[in-house]
Amino acid sequence: MDSENRLHTDAEHSSTDRPAVSPAVIRRLPRYFRYLRELIREGKLRISSGELSERMGVTASQIRQDLNCFGGFGQQGYGYNVNYLYAKISDLLGVGAGLCAVIVGAGDLGRALVRSSMFEKRGVDVVAMFDVNPDLIGREFGGVKIYDVCELETFCLENAVDMAVLTLPKDQVEPMSERLMTAGIRGLWNFTGKELNAISDQIIVENVHLGDSLMILNYQICRDKPTVTPKEERGETADAQKESLE
Amino acid sequence: MDSENRLHTDAEHSSTDRPAVSPAVIRRLPRYFRYLRELIREGKLRISSGELSERMGVTASQIRQDLNCFGGFGQQGYGYNVNYLYAKISDLLGVGAGLCAVIVGAGDLGRALVRSSMFEKRGVDVVAMFDVNPDLIGREFGGVKIYDVCELETFCLENAVDMAVLTLPKDQVEPMSERLMTAGIRGLWNFTGKELNAISDQIIVENVHLGDSLMILNYQICRDKPTVTPKEERGETADAQKESLE
Repeated sequence: MDSENRLHTDAEHSSTDRPAVSPAVIRRLPRYFRYLRELIREGKLRISSGELSERMGVTASQIRQDLNCFGGFGQQGYGYNVNYLYAKISDLLGVGAGLCAVIVGAGDLGRALVRSSMFEKRGVDVVAMFDVNPDLIGREFGGVKIYDVCELETFCLENAVDMAVLTLPKDQVEPMSERLMTAGIRGLWNFTGKELNAISDQIIVENVHLGDSLMILNYQICRDKPTVTPKEERGETADAQKESLE
Repeated sequence: MDSENRLHTDAEHSSTDRPAVSPAVIRRLPRYFRYLRELIREGKLRISSGELSERMGVTASQIRQDLNCFGGFGQQGYGYNVNYLYAKISDLLGVGAGLCAVIVGAGDLGRALVRSSMFEKRGVDVVAMFDVNPDLIGREFGGVKIYDVCELETFCLENAVDMAVLTLPKDQVEPMSERLMTAGIRGLWNFTGKELNAISDQIIVENVHLGDSLMILNYQICRDKPTVTPKEERGETADAQKESLE
């Protein structure tokens, strides 16, 4: 998730009526979106910056700074209107824009994503998956059909697809991006592990590197416990267990 | 991936012989790790900060600042020793520490993760999966067996498991974290979408919110193309296609 450097804001697009929000705030808005949705589920109509601060583990002053740009609806002693703020943030993040996606690569990860509620919750309609495997083509996962990848361009152009989720092998990601660009795709959500830099001004890339997150966890575990027992020194039980799994 | 605030560094642990590296640099190291591995695969022994800068899309001065703490091996006109730097970063990030993990929740995402090469590449040994579903218990995915979740504590204690990957439903994440903590788990890699704040000083949490990344992509697509066609206004072909998928 490393497109920070490329993240421009609406401030540069004076033609829209969206509030001007800095890239750093934009990066934090999806987290507010999640917390606000939780508040709505709980039936909470108003929340003070202090209470939100406690829930989210950030300072109240940070919250006031972040949300200030959405208008003067966080008055002292009155709190934020949860529904209004949720609607404003959702709108800015494109939740109601009717975006439409395809998933390229119907392997384990592609299927896990299509079956999750993640897209629906964020207003993205997944309309097709694509794969090269004849055993998969024609099958459906999560109500979404898998097409032969040779139909990709035609499908995307005919259906005005906005984004492609890349869960294909990493050695195919560059030629695939070129194909998707010619098929009118505007954004790539790239899970392949092969980092795509902006291949063109015409396409936006959001790289996901789950392994980077794993390494940060590794680092923290090892830092706090520098004497982690190497595998070969674990007890007999561990070795016996490992063998029985092989 | 929001543990930035909680990320302390080795500078605070003077008893270790690791270099003192700031939290911001630590967050960037996994990316260097990936690029250095790619260089090793290509058989490249040395690289200048300028060349690495071009590949990674960051300034050469940023690279020199980030890598400076690993010692004076980036001399002018000579470049970095790729293998040495890779070994140093790997060591700092705990790649060789023999960490051992279990996955709690053997659904789509759990299976996608266990079958990937992500853990192996980062020196983490996944030794078991756990689930409550009797149809899954006893099966194997990616060579890893699924156990009944009632065996969790015994297994983790006997096998000195270091971390748990949480891919279970979000309403179960809090009680499960308590169980894992009593089972000696040191770190949680949390994919549930329910943000876990540090439940104790005894356990480290790395939250993954894929949906946040999706929203940033949404934002960028909508920003560049504010006139995204709402679903109901897409052409007949799109509607016909959608119906055939339902």
